[in-house]
Amino acid sequence: MHGLQKQQPKMPQQGANNVFPIFDKVVDRKNKELLLKQRGIVIWMTGLSGSGKTTLAIGLEKYLHDNGHLAYLLDGDNVRTGINSDLGFSEKDRHENIRRIAEVSKLFASSGVITINSFVSPTEELRLLAKNIIGPADFNLVYVNTPLEVCEKRDTKGLYAKARKGEIKDFTGISAPFEEPKNADLVIDAGKSTYEECLKQLIAFVLPKIKL
Amino acid sequence: MHGLQKQQPKMPQQGANNVFPIFDKVVDRKNKELLLKQRGIVIWMTGLSGSGKTTLAIGLEKYLHDNGHLAYLLDGDNVRTGINSDLGFSEKDRHENIRRIAEVSKLFASSGVITINSFVSPTEELRLLAKNIIGPADFNLVYVNTPLEVCEKRDTKGLYAKARKGEIKDFTGISAPFEEPKNADLVIDAGKSTYEECLKQLIAFVLPKIKL
Repeated sequence: MHGLQKQQPKMPQQGANNVFPIFDKVVDRKNKELLLKQRGIVIWMTGLSGSGKTTLAIGLEKYLHDNGHLAYLLDGDNVRTGINSDLGFSEKDRHENIRRIAEVSKLFASSGVITINSFVSPTEELRLLAKNIIGPADFNLVYVNTPLEVCEKRDTKGLYAKARKGEIKDFTGISAPFEEPKNADLVIDAGKSTYEECLKQLIAFVLPKIKL
Repeated sequence: MHGLQKQQPKMPQQGANNVFPIFDKVVDRKNKELLLKQRGIVIWMTGLSGSGKTTLAIGLEKYLHDNGHLAYLLDGDNVRTGINSDLGFSEKDRHENIRRIAEVSKLFASSGVITINSFVSPTEELRLLAKNIIGPADFNLVYVNTPLEVCEKRDTKGLYAKARKGEIKDFTGISAPFEEPKNADLVIDAGKSTYEECLKQLIAFVLPKIKL
């Protein structure tokens, strides 16, 4: 139990039982960042389904981890099955989906973790919602710009085929709009460059931002 | 950009543009825990308003931080104003409040972070909901057992006085039940012991659990 003394808070009344101290605040974000030797920021990847954003996000997380950084990737796999399992795909629910993801990202960033999000987030309104919640200082918008025809040709999950058949309605790029971000902090031309080139570009963008 | 090569994933087709690799999985929890040199677990503090659970949670977070661990405290301050800002205090909303907190805790634990929750969570049903979401291996229920009369006498936030006047309805302990946990992993008699004693007890409980 070494070290217990040094962080003991002041007691408002000494010697009395049942008197609990009152703290000014918890361990703050700055101290957590010092512990982790990094800044907690949010990398918000936007792009069409199949654009490669999740693959790049995974590559970024691996790179950061291998270099001693704690990063966390939020994507459909751990969000839609968990915190957002009650949400469907109505406009209201898509809004709430992004709102909650942004709030969770904000919590992670405030714990010093580098948070990487990979969600289509197809409209300026949704991305602005996320930015406003997370705050402009921590929010980094990365647009993975892959032409629709490339994404559709890949069709890793078979979703484009289903959307063309009308089996998925409001599918971004086919039956629902994708608004190109006007204010992306980084644009990756993932339709033209190789994966390695794209990942290097992403890493080069992120490294200065996580420096203390 | 040192170290970039070693974590490059296998490319399914070399040399072709637009062909992105497919990963088996992201950096998993075990690797994040190795990086942080700790296990990511959830400490779920339950108890009446004014029982001292948040003060103990803060003390625990400070102790862990001062000893090189990354912990994160979820409480009303960062949850009710953020991710759960759309929720009120109906039975349905209280359930949803705990469900989301548990889901967020699960995400944090899976990133290797020691997550400390401080919420009244007054019923066995609510605590079981949290346990089922987080999973029994990671869920640690700590009951801060402070008699109602002690909590009411402290009344740090003036809530008991309001509840007695009928200004707050369904207030736990006054006009809504608090079910004593039957399966707490730790019970802290915070009505009898000093703050230092309670905190030492909590720390002694947590330290073996976060060991890798």
